[in-house]
Amino acid sequence: MRFPEIGEENCSIARTLAVLGERWTLLILRQSFLGVKRFDELQRTLGIARNVLADRLQTLVGEGVLERRRYQDRPPRYEYKLTPKGLDLYPVLVSLMEWGDRYNAPNGAPVVLVHRTCGKQTHPHFVCSECGEPLDPREVRPAPGPGALLETA
Amino acid sequence: MRFPEIGEENCSIARTLAVLGERWTLLILRQSFLGVKRFDELQRTLGIARNVLADRLQTLVGEGVLERRRYQDRPPRYEYKLTPKGLDLYPVLVSLMEWGDRYNAPNGAPVVLVHRTCGKQTHPHFVCSECGEPLDPREVRPAPGPGALLETA
Repeated sequence: MRFPEIGEENCSIARTLAVLGERWTLLILRQSFLGVKRFDELQRTLGIARNVLADRLQTLVGEGVLERRRYQDRPPRYEYKLTPKGLDLYPVLVSLMEWGDRYNAPNGAPVVLVHRTCGKQTHPHFVCSECGEPLDPREVRPAPGPGALLETA
Repeated sequence: MRFPEIGEENCSIARTLAVLGERWTLLILRQSFLGVKRFDELQRTLGIARNVLADRLQTLVGEGVLERRRYQDRPPRYEYKLTPKGLDLYPVLVSLMEWGDRYNAPNGAPVVLVHRTCGKQTHPHFVCSECGEPLDPREVRPAPGPGALLETA
C-alpha cells in the first residue's frame, strides 16, 4: 500500500491521518487553538513558506476543519478560524502535547493548560464514557464496529 | 524553519511530531496496540515496504517507544512490543480514531472499543484532572510553563 491510498483504508486512524498527515498541518492547528488566525501571523509564527501554508490551509478549509473569512478588503486579507469539526481535534493536540511534556521536555512543560471552569492547571486524561474510570489501554478491547468490512475468505 | 528542525522548537506538540511525524509510524503503533508484534506480520498487515518498516521500527526502538525481542533463533526473528512510554501514546491513537469515527466513517465506526473493566462499549473523552469535568477547548487557557523560554526583546 502506498501512502496516498491510506485514506481509503477502512480505519478511522488512517483516515484522520489522511487529513492531518502533512507534517505542518498539526502545527497550523496548534496555532489556531492558540488563537492565531491571520495568514501573515500564521506565516510569521510558524516560519513556514507562504505557498506551503496556503496549500495546507486550503486543504483544511476544504475538509471543513477551518473556515476562511475576509477581514480586510484593500488589500484583501483572510483569517482562518476553527469550525466545530476543527474544535473536535482538541483531544488530538492535547494528547500529543501531554506525551511530549512527559517524555520530551527536559526543562519542564513549555506550556501549561489552565481550566477556566475550575481555575486550576489541568492535565487532561481520558476516561471511559460509561463508567467514568481512567482508561488503561490494557483494559480496552477492540471489536468490529458497524462499519467493519466483512472479510471474504 | 525547515521540518528537520522542528523537534528543536520549544513545543511539546512539535517534539512529539518529530518522533511520530513519519506517516507510517502511527499506523505501526496502531498495529502494536492491536497486538501485532512480529516483523513479518506488521509487514503483511500494513502492506509496507520491508526497508521502510525496518527504518521506522528502528526509530521507535531508539526512542524507547517499542522494545525489540528475539523470539526465534534460527533464523533470527524479532518482535516489537510497546514499552510503558509507548503505552502512554494510547490517547493519541484513540483521539485520532474518535475523530475519524465521527467525521470520516460514512458506514459507521470500523472498530469499536470495549472497556473490559465495565464491559461496555466506550467512547473515551477528555476530562480535567482537577475537577473531572469534560474539557471544552474554549474553557482552556494556555499559559507559559516552567520550560517556557524567556523571550529577549
